[in-house]
Amino acid sequence: MAVYTQLGAEDLASLMANYDVGDLRSAKGIAEGVSNSNWLLETDQNRFILTMYEARTDIADLPFFLGLLDHLAQKGCPVPRTIHDNNGAAYRMVDGKPVALIEFLAGVSVEHPTADQARAVGAALATTHIAAQDFNMVRANTMSLAAWHSLFDACSSDGLASIDPALPDFVSQELAFLDANWPESLPKGPIHADLFPDNVLMLGNRVSGLIDFYFACNDFLAYDLAVTHAAWAFSADGSVFDADIASALMDGYESVRPLCDAERKALPVLARGAAMRFLSTRCYDWLHRAEGALVTPKDPMAFMRRARLYANPANGAFPGQVEQASPSAG
Amino acid sequence: MAVYTQLGAEDLASLMANYDVGDLRSAKGIAEGVSNSNWLLETDQNRFILTMYEARTDIADLPFFLGLLDHLAQKGCPVPRTIHDNNGAAYRMVDGKPVALIEFLAGVSVEHPTADQARAVGAALATTHIAAQDFNMVRANTMSLAAWHSLFDACSSDGLASIDPALPDFVSQELAFLDANWPESLPKGPIHADLFPDNVLMLGNRVSGLIDFYFACNDFLAYDLAVTHAAWAFSADGSVFDADIASALMDGYESVRPLCDAERKALPVLARGAAMRFLSTRCYDWLHRAEGALVTPKDPMAFMRRARLYANPANGAFPGQVEQASPSAG
Repeated sequence: MAVYTQLGAEDLASLMANYDVGDLRSAKGIAEGVSNSNWLLETDQNRFILTMYEARTDIADLPFFLGLLDHLAQKGCPVPRTIHDNNGAAYRMVDGKPVALIEFLAGVSVEHPTADQARAVGAALATTHIAAQDFNMVRANTMSLAAWHSLFDACSSDGLASIDPALPDFVSQELAFLDANWPESLPKGPIHADLFPDNVLMLGNRVSGLIDFYFACNDFLAYDLAVTHAAWAFSADGSVFDADIASALMDGYESVRPLCDAERKALPVLARGAAMRFLSTRCYDWLHRAEGALVTPKDPMAFMRRARLYANPANGAFPGQVEQASPSAG
Repeated sequence: MAVYTQLGAEDLASLMANYDVGDLRSAKGIAEGVSNSNWLLETDQNRFILTMYEARTDIADLPFFLGLLDHLAQKGCPVPRTIHDNNGAAYRMVDGKPVALIEFLAGVSVEHPTADQARAVGAALATTHIAAQDFNMVRANTMSLAAWHSLFDACSSDGLASIDPALPDFVSQELAFLDANWPESLPKGPIHADLFPDNVLMLGNRVSGLIDFYFACNDFLAYDLAVTHAAWAFSADGSVFDADIASALMDGYESVRPLCDAERKALPVLARGAAMRFLSTRCYDWLHRAEGALVTPKDPMAFMRRARLYANPANGAFPGQVEQASPSAG
């Protein structure tokens, strides 16, 4: 949540001259996303988001991210189109960094979703899963089970213990469980992989935009639903699970794309994985934060609490599936 | 340049219900100003800037700041109006902090002004000086010569020397000069007192907005022009003085409000004061920055260089006035 790079009016105007979008009338650096610099631009024709990709985004991935947005937008999904420049390019280089001009979408991000909003988000997610099935590019999930192992290894037991004394053992046990139980085969396709409330724009109960596809990759569709479950069905600090939100999210998803039996059965394991995915990056960022960094790292314990709830099927995060999924756990 | 406070969609929507501005459709935290949190809001009727005043702004000053904006806007000056709530109030309290809803103005801030742009800024400044003459509220300048003394005292000689070995002596000499030569009586009125390029919105060569009046106060009108001179006629780091920009700024100002002889004679002293005003706050902020602070303090030397140039009339910052102003200096 920061603007890392300064772009003056002159830089912006000369950049915009490469697009057929009219004359620049306003430019505000906006506090959106944690990895990139963003500006809300207004021309005499329209409004746009300009994103400058900082070090964390690999330029080799941009064709996948931006191509997926265009693919989904063309199919009517509520995602922002990429505006191509006068040569047809989806991104350009400015000061050695790639920038893309993105359609502005109305809507606000909710902090305390209602069940109706969660249902709409579930349905929107399912819609993108179906619409993305024939997208012809592929990007591996760089935040998969193997990556969680690496990230936790880089934290070391002492590091994890400095966050919470229970973390080292809990992490070992959960990773062992996931190694043994991670599904081998489920329906796959392009997924968002990071659909937190701040990546969803809403107008009332309607989803007006799904944004920030910079973790998008090919993986199990049901894993994306599990990530969204972990992101939406808890209070931000992970201390309160809201069964009504969870149930509405699942209902909304299945109203568009019903899960197959294998997906339904795998969901509790996928959710344990989703919690570990964010626990791993939060622990890593917490322990590797730079002195005087602009961005305050997010609390790892918010996902420790989610992971603990998911790790015990008796907690009923996925009602009716406890017995099938993991009868001996608890 | 930061958003210090998080306001979710629910907080914003309930706030906006107190204004007759339509339904909220978008809210982006924007990186504007160094002391306050700002959001660019869009409703189905219009766009607005929402400002939340953090600790640095005294709530007792808000009626002056916001009243001055309304006064100037009503007279046709390019400043944003304050939107009053349904009870007529110019600001409200949210989470114990005052917030104001401000008109959004188009325009972008230039980094490298042209002479035509500087001329337009000079003219716009003079227009506000004339329009503000009958504004009936008064706010003392809390960043006057006495305050520079206090700020430099709080830096200590050792602190100043840690920034640059030449600073302690230079500061003593300049403050002594200003104590002896600061004008006693010049035309006064409400002034902006901080009209840097990032506080001016432009559309081409036209000034579309003067913003960020949070240092506005009653003081010499020519001091405001001197501040603007120091802000516009140098490269950002203070190493290059641009006589063409300076001359265009002065011409633009005098095309609307010609200076009287006393003001013209005082300008070189006022400019030395203007440079010391920003040198004092930059040194203070530099030496008192919090560990891990979100905002990187600005380089004090950028104003040390300006102050040095102004301190030697032979450098010709104000052509034709060298002999009158300070014949023995140099």
